[in-house]
Amino acid sequence: MFSFSVTGLCEDWRQELEQIKENEAEALIKAQKKEAVYQDSSGWIDTQEWADDAHLSRLEEIAETVRKEADAFVLIGVGGSNNAARSVIEALKSDGAPEIIYAGNTLSPHALNQMLESLKGKEFYIDCIAKNFETLEPGSSFRILRKALKEKYGDQAYRHIITTGTKGSAFEKLSMEQGYTFLEFPEDIGGRFTAMSNVGLLPMAVAGIDIRALVKGASDMEALVRKAGPSENPAYEYAAFRNLNYRHGHKIEMLSSFEPQLRYFYYWWTQLFAESEGKDGKGIFPVTGEFSEQLHSIGQYIQDGEDMMFETFVTAEVQKDSLVIEADDVFDGFDYLNGKDFFDINRAALEATMEAHAAKFPVGRISIDCLDAYHFGQLFYFFQFACYLSCSIMGVNPFDQPGVEAYKVRMFERLGK
Amino acid sequence: MFSFSVTGLCEDWRQELEQIKENEAEALIKAQKKEAVYQDSSGWIDTQEWADDAHLSRLEEIAETVRKEADAFVLIGVGGSNNAARSVIEALKSDGAPEIIYAGNTLSPHALNQMLESLKGKEFYIDCIAKNFETLEPGSSFRILRKALKEKYGDQAYRHIITTGTKGSAFEKLSMEQGYTFLEFPEDIGGRFTAMSNVGLLPMAVAGIDIRALVKGASDMEALVRKAGPSENPAYEYAAFRNLNYRHGHKIEMLSSFEPQLRYFYYWWTQLFAESEGKDGKGIFPVTGEFSEQLHSIGQYIQDGEDMMFETFVTAEVQKDSLVIEADDVFDGFDYLNGKDFFDINRAALEATMEAHAAKFPVGRISIDCLDAYHFGQLFYFFQFACYLSCSIMGVNPFDQPGVEAYKVRMFERLGK
Repeated sequence: MFSFSVTGLCEDWRQELEQIKENEAEALIKAQKKEAVYQDSSGWIDTQEWADDAHLSRLEEIAETVRKEADAFVLIGVGGSNNAARSVIEALKSDGAPEIIYAGNTLSPHALNQMLESLKGKEFYIDCIAKNFETLEPGSSFRILRKALKEKYGDQAYRHIITTGTKGSAFEKLSMEQGYTFLEFPEDIGGRFTAMSNVGLLPMAVAGIDIRALVKGASDMEALVRKAGPSENPAYEYAAFRNLNYRHGHKIEMLSSFEPQLRYFYYWWTQLFAESEGKDGKGIFPVTGEFSEQLHSIGQYIQDGEDMMFETFVTAEVQKDSLVIEADDVFDGFDYLNGKDFFDINRAALEATMEAHAAKFPVGRISIDCLDAYHFGQLFYFFQFACYLSCSIMGVNPFDQPGVEAYKVRMFERLGK
Repeated sequence: MFSFSVTGLCEDWRQELEQIKENEAEALIKAQKKEAVYQDSSGWIDTQEWADDAHLSRLEEIAETVRKEADAFVLIGVGGSNNAARSVIEALKSDGAPEIIYAGNTLSPHALNQMLESLKGKEFYIDCIAKNFETLEPGSSFRILRKALKEKYGDQAYRHIITTGTKGSAFEKLSMEQGYTFLEFPEDIGGRFTAMSNVGLLPMAVAGIDIRALVKGASDMEALVRKAGPSENPAYEYAAFRNLNYRHGHKIEMLSSFEPQLRYFYYWWTQLFAESEGKDGKGIFPVTGEFSEQLHSIGQYIQDGEDMMFETFVTAEVQKDSLVIEADDVFDGFDYLNGKDFFDINRAALEATMEAHAAKFPVGRISIDCLDAYHFGQLFYFFQFACYLSCSIMGVNPFDQPGVEAYKVRMFERLGK
């Protein structure tokens, strides 16, 4: 199950939404066929290109070795090189798999020392993932982790090192010379679109995630959104909905959910939209709401603050977990909950919140069955395709990120590079 | 050490900032004296009122018992009842203290089952913190945790229960009847301002935080900002800076830092400003930047997106942690880092980022020595007092939150309350 629907639109806005869908249909048709102009960035559009059976089998094989031998697995990567994997791993990890530890995403000596400390006494592997192996965080973390491996495993350290880089790069050359296990980082996919490739899938496989189910979810979503016309295409509907809001000054989108398991998925989603759309002085600023908890912090602003937001909920519709509140002999004033399941209580809070917010601004709803690998696959592909469409409608290049150079130039100067 | 400074202001804006400080000085004078109109919410202004030696001694005594007997301590609370404690605990926790587990902040059966699972086999205490004991999350979590305690400790369960509620409330009555250890939730402080009271301090003391140093930091900040005039008052300067930005359409403030230890402090800060300021159709929307990591996700938007933000950095100026990058025989292209300490690398990234961002919009900088209990105390008081001032300048009541009722009414209806 997957659907996207909208509430809280007045009649005028509903008509305008239809108008956008009519006027921008060319964007959908182009994306469905892949545009030549974005050829160097559209390797993710065919899910099979980087996640076919041959890729998955190799990843499963490597993961099997790591799972047998290691207590911990260090994912060295930042931004597009770790957000997708971390989303799924932190939501679905189970006992028995190696602990997944994140590095290459900070320059803080406090955080890095804690990370090294946490590896003490553990058998571990590392995977250094970098499309551009000049990025400071993964490069510097790779250094200190190579040293830790050398101290532990001596001249066998190389056997514990996996690298993920582009074909023909200096990073590949180095890996070959050192005997590391080398995986290809797709040359034709930007970091934030690499969930369904070696980048996202190896760490997930090590953590015991069913990567075949994940890829199936993405493929099924691909089949839907690359075929459906403008009037029955959920990704296109969502992209049009975003642009409708943007045109009316709703320049902050909040992605909300009552499923705390989505915490790291929020990081992934935030990067996808901030980096794809935030350019040329344009872009919807992406923020996220971890409900019900954050209703007790930002709920007041949402309800009564500046009129500049809209909201999209991700809701899981099928019950997978249960916890029933039993009667109790302490008179605590909560007897109205007796016999109720938290699944239903959480759901009541969700429906009430959507209703209250929809009275203030437009609210979208992405409904899935539940949070499992298959549906994460659906969500990844859905948002990627919708983001591409949303950027096209807004008139920005979805696949570049020229603005990230500004601080890097100044930083490399200070570091004497 | 504590200072607030501003960069990235053009001459016109700098003059306007001085103008605001001149025109709004009344707001500062009123806050320094405490306003009668906010009497029921200003119990936090005198740090000594709820965090004097008698309070601290009692908390240390209770904490000592818990630390001796428990492997885990469950903080049941949401929003203002857990954000301050969690900020400090997650930043500064050390080995040997009971594990602090959070409950009462979700309705998700998945998350709650995981929480119960994590308690299996452990000796534990709970502290249920609720100013309004009708709030659903803490009330329902308290139910299931009472049950878990009863199963484990039988008729001695009550000895493992601490409650924090207002004097004279039904919650106090219930606690007395059941023999729980009861702590007072200050009647005259709203949840988001309760860091320096039983609410914030007990869980911190259990986690081994030096709460006397924390309170000292807050007291020292109180002494500074309640005395200093408009031209030398950092809290007033920050409040004026925020309003200057707001008047010019910079309606999103990003609180940023290169210290990942601040992650949960960000949640506290977000609530403080969103809930205090976001009303009457006004308010700056608070967001946060976990740098350097999130430069790789939202950095592009910050640099090239819509012109609607400004930024405030928290920087720790004194080196406490060290990790040096050594030369290596693998030619990885990072030899320019040889012999450099991550402290300095992280700092270079900070300075470069502030400079790049200040070329786009105004940037504030809050400088402290380091992240320890004392400086957390400073930060809590600084932001609370500045928030009060910022709301006064903006013309909203800092201490109420009428908007949070909208979804609750609908939710209680659905739950048959």
